[in-house]
Amino acid sequence: MDINELALELHKKFGGKITITLRDTEELTKQKLSAYYSPGVAEVSRVIADDPTKLPEYTWTSNLVAVISDGSAVLGLGDIGPEGAMPVMEGKAMLFKHFAGIDSVPIVLDVHSADEIVAAVKAIAPSFGAVNLEDIAAPKCFEVEERLAEALPIPVMHDDQHGTATVTLAGLINACKVTGRTLADCNIVIVGAGAAGVAIAKLLQKYASPHMIAVDSKGVISHDRTDLNESKQRLLEFTNRDNISGSLDEVISGADVFIGVSSPNLLSQDMVRSMADNPIIFALANPDPEITPDDAKAAGAAIIATGRSDYPNQVNNATAFPGIFRGALDNHVRQITDEHKIAAAEVIASLVENPSADEIIPSVFDERLVPAIAKVIT
Amino acid sequence: MDINELALELHKKFGGKITITLRDTEELTKQKLSAYYSPGVAEVSRVIADDPTKLPEYTWTSNLVAVISDGSAVLGLGDIGPEGAMPVMEGKAMLFKHFAGIDSVPIVLDVHSADEIVAAVKAIAPSFGAVNLEDIAAPKCFEVEERLAEALPIPVMHDDQHGTATVTLAGLINACKVTGRTLADCNIVIVGAGAAGVAIAKLLQKYASPHMIAVDSKGVISHDRTDLNESKQRLLEFTNRDNISGSLDEVISGADVFIGVSSPNLLSQDMVRSMADNPIIFALANPDPEITPDDAKAAGAAIIATGRSDYPNQVNNATAFPGIFRGALDNHVRQITDEHKIAAAEVIASLVENPSADEIIPSVFDERLVPAIAKVIT
Repeated sequence: MDINELALELHKKFGGKITITLRDTEELTKQKLSAYYSPGVAEVSRVIADDPTKLPEYTWTSNLVAVISDGSAVLGLGDIGPEGAMPVMEGKAMLFKHFAGIDSVPIVLDVHSADEIVAAVKAIAPSFGAVNLEDIAAPKCFEVEERLAEALPIPVMHDDQHGTATVTLAGLINACKVTGRTLADCNIVIVGAGAAGVAIAKLLQKYASPHMIAVDSKGVISHDRTDLNESKQRLLEFTNRDNISGSLDEVISGADVFIGVSSPNLLSQDMVRSMADNPIIFALANPDPEITPDDAKAAGAAIIATGRSDYPNQVNNATAFPGIFRGALDNHVRQITDEHKIAAAEVIASLVENPSADEIIPSVFDERLVPAIAKVIT
Repeated sequence: MDINELALELHKKFGGKITITLRDTEELTKQKLSAYYSPGVAEVSRVIADDPTKLPEYTWTSNLVAVISDGSAVLGLGDIGPEGAMPVMEGKAMLFKHFAGIDSVPIVLDVHSADEIVAAVKAIAPSFGAVNLEDIAAPKCFEVEERLAEALPIPVMHDDQHGTATVTLAGLINACKVTGRTLADCNIVIVGAGAAGVAIAKLLQKYASPHMIAVDSKGVISHDRTDLNESKQRLLEFTNRDNISGSLDEVISGADVFIGVSSPNLLSQDMVRSMADNPIIFALANPDPEITPDDAKAAGAAIIATGRSDYPNQVNNATAFPGIFRGALDNHVRQITDEHKIAAAEVIASLVENPSADEIIPSVFDERLVPAIAKVIT
């Protein structure tokens, strides 16, 4: 059966993917109901009202993440609105539970400005132990995340940015090992300057300050451009040190690493041939990569990673976010920092014992991932 | 063990009361994950984005209620804030699941004006199939509910108002039967003009237009008062037809029915003795009623109902709301109307086959309740 047909069939059959069940699975006697609800629950409320930091001790919030989207940048589908985003957010909740035992609630928002999104999330925040922002369009996603992380006493992470950046860094660490490179000395071209591209550039800068050039749909991001939004302007603080202008096929020449979070078929075999010897290609556009693994290899790529599960080296956020949130909740982390993401990337990379061209990233099904990552999110 | 101690112990032991589980309990194969999440889920998103009315077919929203409070009027504890309210809202979610199989998510709000509450609930509304407002202080609860019911395409019900009013009406129907009264001919004194008191008065008016006088902490609500908020002023459109002023002990004299949703020990035995023969007493203050059942009976009450489970005739919202929401969700009801509440009250009353002084309301554990009520919410 076609995967789309199977998706529709399964979603309809089960009426979605998650459900609420009771933690206490034994019989709810009249006495227990009087303890879980009125009148006994009033005592629990009193204790928490006296000291709100006790909320996680007595409620499900200690293990609870809000998965929040306004539906403005859903998968490859774009701005499809909150209803269309719901199956993806419910899917994320499924992954949270399946991989990390974390309860999460999909919340899709019928508001779309940064101000309104921030206001809505702040309003409901006491209900949760952490916030996972998802599929919110750039550049507003940057402002939304920054303002919420600043305002809320619980961790806030936009997974499209930092999950992707963390797994990309993990893969690059091993790709450098396999090809005998030092990340700091690499020439890297990043194509796509949305949520993922900007976050990857920032995290690589923090980790190793390699030489990077960012490219968007209008060409190389340089000081000569007059059409750059604030997040792209900020990239120029550390990318494109020689202020080169032009197009991808010019700057790709001689590069060690291509990282694409952009559009299908954007990287030609000629471009790959123009790169440094044994180039590293991360073609992460989903579902269709910037170049197919077969074409990339035929053109001389030493390593090719994609977002797909049907090729080796899948860059999949689910490798990182379950462990990051597991650690943030368990260790009462207030903010998820660059240091956390770097530590997570190093752990992910280290779980591949003998990195090779076809294995630079562990499988999302590797059961060591969540506990190992959680341990370093402190 | 003391019920408060048991409450603290159980809440701590289980880490709250509810958890998320997966609907598909069989093994999540790689193929199924590709159908429930990327890439297959994109097809489900596309179908819903094309026609948002299909959201309930493919997601958990078809069986999902938001239980929403700003923590401004929690049980008898008052304005204890969102964190303190959480155990009660999570308890409500437990009742929804236990009694009606309904998934619900407790959402406590860190905003408190009617405008902000309405904005927050509207923002997250596409995530849910219905909204249960809970423990929001009067009079803002009236405005919040009215504006949300008007604005949203899903049913919205403030249970402190309408759950209580529905079960009170059910009890009164049978109390009249037992004491040989016609509800339309009763003289009724309602003490307490908050959420529950106002809703009870309105529903009784709609059902039978009996003669009613409302009393708040300042005395009888009459046109002579200059301190009345809008909801109390609106009560005067149909209560206190003779515009009597004064205090409870004056207007209780000769009354057939006392309904208290106010404060403990407010109704004296002398007041009961001054009522009509065989009076009906609904002393619903929680946890301590306006008069104890023993004192009321000793003073001549024919029927005494309270909010407590340790006396006969418990007026408990949980008798009504699970069935009302079950019906609203199953029958795709857009608004819960007075006609729905009256139909639900009549069903509840009818489930007591032989009403007597000690049995005017079925037990919340009566398994006939939810399906019977759901059937009339159409």
